[in-house]
Amino acid sequence: MPADTTLKRDSILRLSSLFLRTLREDPADAEVDSHKLLLRAGYIRRAAPGIYSWLPLGLRVLAKIEAIIHEEMQAIGAQQVHFPALLPREPYEVSGRWDEFGAGLFRLKDRKEADMLLAPTHEEMFTLLVKDLYSSYKDLPLTLYQIQTKYRDEARPRAGLIRGREFIMKDSYTFNIDDAGLNAAYLDHRNAYERIFTRLGLEYVIVSAMAGAMGGSRSEEFLVPCAIGEDTFVRSPGGYAANVEAVTTPVPDALTWDDAPDAHVEDTPDCPTIEALVAYANATFPRPDRPWTGADTLKNVVYAVTDAAGHRSLLVIGVPGDREIDEKRLEAALAPAEAEPATDKDFVNHPELVRGYIGPEVLGLDEKGNGIRYLLDPRVVPGTRWITGANQAGKHVVDLVAGRDFSADGTIEAAEVREGDLAPDGSGTLHLARGIEMGHIFQLGRKYAEALDLKVLDENGKQVTVTMGSYGIGVTRALAALAELHHDAQGLAWPAQVAPAQVHIVATGKEQTVFDEAERIATELDARGVEVIYDDRPKVSPGVKFKDAELLGVPLIVVVGRGLKDGVVEVRPRAGQSTTLDVTTAVDAIMAEVQAL
Amino acid sequence: MPADTTLKRDSILRLSSLFLRTLREDPADAEVDSHKLLLRAGYIRRAAPGIYSWLPLGLRVLAKIEAIIHEEMQAIGAQQVHFPALLPREPYEVSGRWDEFGAGLFRLKDRKEADMLLAPTHEEMFTLLVKDLYSSYKDLPLTLYQIQTKYRDEARPRAGLIRGREFIMKDSYTFNIDDAGLNAAYLDHRNAYERIFTRLGLEYVIVSAMAGAMGGSRSEEFLVPCAIGEDTFVRSPGGYAANVEAVTTPVPDALTWDDAPDAHVEDTPDCPTIEALVAYANATFPRPDRPWTGADTLKNVVYAVTDAAGHRSLLVIGVPGDREIDEKRLEAALAPAEAEPATDKDFVNHPELVRGYIGPEVLGLDEKGNGIRYLLDPRVVPGTRWITGANQAGKHVVDLVAGRDFSADGTIEAAEVREGDLAPDGSGTLHLARGIEMGHIFQLGRKYAEALDLKVLDENGKQVTVTMGSYGIGVTRALAALAELHHDAQGLAWPAQVAPAQVHIVATGKEQTVFDEAERIATELDARGVEVIYDDRPKVSPGVKFKDAELLGVPLIVVVGRGLKDGVVEVRPRAGQSTTLDVTTAVDAIMAEVQAL
Repeated sequence: MPADTTLKRDSILRLSSLFLRTLREDPADAEVDSHKLLLRAGYIRRAAPGIYSWLPLGLRVLAKIEAIIHEEMQAIGAQQVHFPALLPREPYEVSGRWDEFGAGLFRLKDRKEADMLLAPTHEEMFTLLVKDLYSSYKDLPLTLYQIQTKYRDEARPRAGLIRGREFIMKDSYTFNIDDAGLNAAYLDHRNAYERIFTRLGLEYVIVSAMAGAMGGSRSEEFLVPCAIGEDTFVRSPGGYAANVEAVTTPVPDALTWDDAPDAHVEDTPDCPTIEALVAYANATFPRPDRPWTGADTLKNVVYAVTDAAGHRSLLVIGVPGDREIDEKRLEAALAPAEAEPATDKDFVNHPELVRGYIGPEVLGLDEKGNGIRYLLDPRVVPGTRWITGANQAGKHVVDLVAGRDFSADGTIEAAEVREGDLAPDGSGTLHLARGIEMGHIFQLGRKYAEALDLKVLDENGKQVTVTMGSYGIGVTRALAALAELHHDAQGLAWPAQVAPAQVHIVATGKEQTVFDEAERIATELDARGVEVIYDDRPKVSPGVKFKDAELLGVPLIVVVGRGLKDGVVEVRPRAGQSTTLDVTTAVDAIMAEVQAL
Repeated sequence: MPADTTLKRDSILRLSSLFLRTLREDPADAEVDSHKLLLRAGYIRRAAPGIYSWLPLGLRVLAKIEAIIHEEMQAIGAQQVHFPALLPREPYEVSGRWDEFGAGLFRLKDRKEADMLLAPTHEEMFTLLVKDLYSSYKDLPLTLYQIQTKYRDEARPRAGLIRGREFIMKDSYTFNIDDAGLNAAYLDHRNAYERIFTRLGLEYVIVSAMAGAMGGSRSEEFLVPCAIGEDTFVRSPGGYAANVEAVTTPVPDALTWDDAPDAHVEDTPDCPTIEALVAYANATFPRPDRPWTGADTLKNVVYAVTDAAGHRSLLVIGVPGDREIDEKRLEAALAPAEAEPATDKDFVNHPELVRGYIGPEVLGLDEKGNGIRYLLDPRVVPGTRWITGANQAGKHVVDLVAGRDFSADGTIEAAEVREGDLAPDGSGTLHLARGIEMGHIFQLGRKYAEALDLKVLDENGKQVTVTMGSYGIGVTRALAALAELHHDAQGLAWPAQVAPAQVHIVATGKEQTVFDEAERIATELDARGVEVIYDDRPKVSPGVKFKDAELLGVPLIVVVGRGLKDGVVEVRPRAGQSTTLDVTTAVDAIMAEVQAL
């Protein structure tokens, strides 16, 4: 054992030795501002597509985000555990997700050829752990959480940390004996998430969500409104808010068709688009009451759907011709099955599907149809009249009435949602915006507990299945969202509570007194518990130092330089006006500004 | 945003709600005490072979170990970074380790069929990161570290956390421009490691080590002496200490053979063992000066060696007949190539290798030999006389003299090291012991910097290759080693600095006053910053509570129960005599004991 005791050092981040290299130019492969700036300011480096290495400044921000999450999770009684990232196949086989995750799951074999995976999420493991340890209603309620590295083999990793293949999540799970308990646990989490995002400095919107591949019932997302967000959400003046995938279409009342004309087939030459068809219809067989519009046409789109077991079948979706299919809504509606447009070969195999002229009369699983599943947009209620394909090239059928002339196998929410659509709850028209999904809370219910047989004895000694909630926060994504929301053309501009330091001291010029004074201020601030970056580089120009300070994004920049001969130093909030401080009282004045951050 | 502020809670670990289930029985698949007790006390659970989930108490101990390591690394100026666990193949291809790691590397393909791996160690990534950011001698010296989850597909994961497939390592790397800098950085780490293991409460021995697959020059291991250790190490009275794999054999002086008899072939019927051969030799052709011993026989053992490129060839090793080949020394001597005993088919292909009667005269790569590489134990110096195989069944050759009658392609350190062998530095005889490898420090030199082209400009503007050091600590293994060294028949007995709490309060009986008083003591200790486990379970017997307290292993157990009516509570150090405390001053008295821990 060496005789000396632990070296004591201050914790000032001196730029002469900090492992950092800032970049003047935007990296070629970075698309969004946060990604560019996190790379340029030396917070992260790319290791592979969607996979990043963390540099010292990035780790400091990450640690602060994690600390806030830990505090708020523990405040609602959540207990920390930690699961492996590398897991055996079996639990995911039992839950069905070994297959359901599809190509998004990193799968591998160990040296004994056993199937393993890199966990994208841990529902199965949490369920099995509680089953392993607990057996009585007295053990519940229980809330467990972890902050952990997760893996998803994204088809298109993008926007840096926003959608990566290796990323950090906080995931938590609640275990209750009844629905009332689950509701209470869900609300605890909802409140904790509100506190977390508020403390982080992330403005958020809570929207209704689809549970997707997770199963379950009540489900909400915390979205940060942001132009680069991958999620589209809607809000109404009356308070409806939902992820666009979860929006349900207000279903109009059915109409009577007593006064509707009979359906009639018309030649429709040279009508390759809905617009051309509508123009031709108004010219050739005008509607007496009003002109035909795109919304009067029924477009039938053919998809090939592959279910979780790998079985592939065709699906035709009928939507009003003025709306496109929204692939993300379609995906959400079909999950865990996956859809892709039908191929040329599919059409060859099904000559009854006449491209551009597919009509509902031949479709459907029932005895009248061709055995291909046919689903309609919810707007296509009985009594609505349509111009649609006549199943012959160059011909459409007009005044085809739903319910009278055709039916389908059901409805599907796959048509795009548009600005101005009506909210399903009657709360007004919808406004669309983009957002980054930061958190997701949902009531799993008994899906995993049933699949993995998690039961406890109730008060009467009877075995009852536990009901669960699942709650996630994207931790590395939160860091990126903070950078995306808090920056300007010069660089990052962190909220104080997550900044890598509170004060960035710049020493300019060549005089030793400047460096001595800057060192003194840095040391005194450090001793008072302030986190300080000190740009002590001896031969770097003031211009470069200022640019770096703005790029790094610490809230208060203190300049020790020319003013010193007049007894002053300058303090510049990262996004505000600079003021001068008497050097003799500068430390106290800076402390006051730090405390006001 | 909810109006309420963050809930304030104490941080007492109440056993009525702590996620914990202790086990009375040893788990069937746990071999060593630390593994059994960590499972029984609810610190970890097994998720797959060599892969563990962490429960709340385990995470608390882990966090304390990590905090000590962080402090000491930062005290030597190491800066924290963090690399992905999931990495692309390329850097490991360039360094040659994609192949060298063999079956121990978890390999996988992503959805685009790109080869990836789960990193067992990060030399390549650190090297590339520094190359990416730095380019001048002014940037050096530099020390980087991370605490990170690593993966090795061990053939035989064993002893719980001692040898796992997913485990936590602290790894650090130093970058210097010259050897003097590397030496200084190496010593800084050596000193930091001494402080770390001392603070953790792990007695250690520093031994010379082989660098193995890592390459490089100076290399030492920090071993914790322990019967269940996988490493064997040696020490001499004069201060020599080495891992048995790194022990070099003192080479005797060569002898003259002027007075040696000519070699003569003898019939040696019914001599299947060295003992039988020696007995037969002493009976049939006795040596005039002294009896023959096993050490006079030369045993030639045939191995098949597969190099990193996958090429397989035979190797014969000649060792004195009284020693076995030590497979771990052999493996270390040949790394990264791997050896296995020759197969029946190998012998069929090489009829000149007569099993049981292989002699050196036919062996060797040179023109006199058969093209099979032949390596000798270093003791087989010129002039030594041997009884060995005569390359004919049932016959041995006697008085075969090394240097006169046979030669080899070189020497190899593959024979077992035995208690009482001489230290190579003349410092006395060797004592063997077992140990757990807790840390490894070594001078990589320029191996990775050359392979990955890490150069910086020196003071004269010339490109020079950087020299590196690499330093590891097994973090999860340290936790297991602490449990292995600090326990008794009743359970764990953590050193205070890593214990999950300092005080474990047990409330016994059914009276409310007992629980009220225990709660008061817990709350007051918690308010003073003491970490408290409080067994507040209402219907659990005192016996079960005491057993659990001893199993969990917190340093101070405080019993609030029957004594309360006499105004006293009891305090029991986990491994000491219990005393009674006046309940009115108990908190102060417990505080004093906590501070003395």
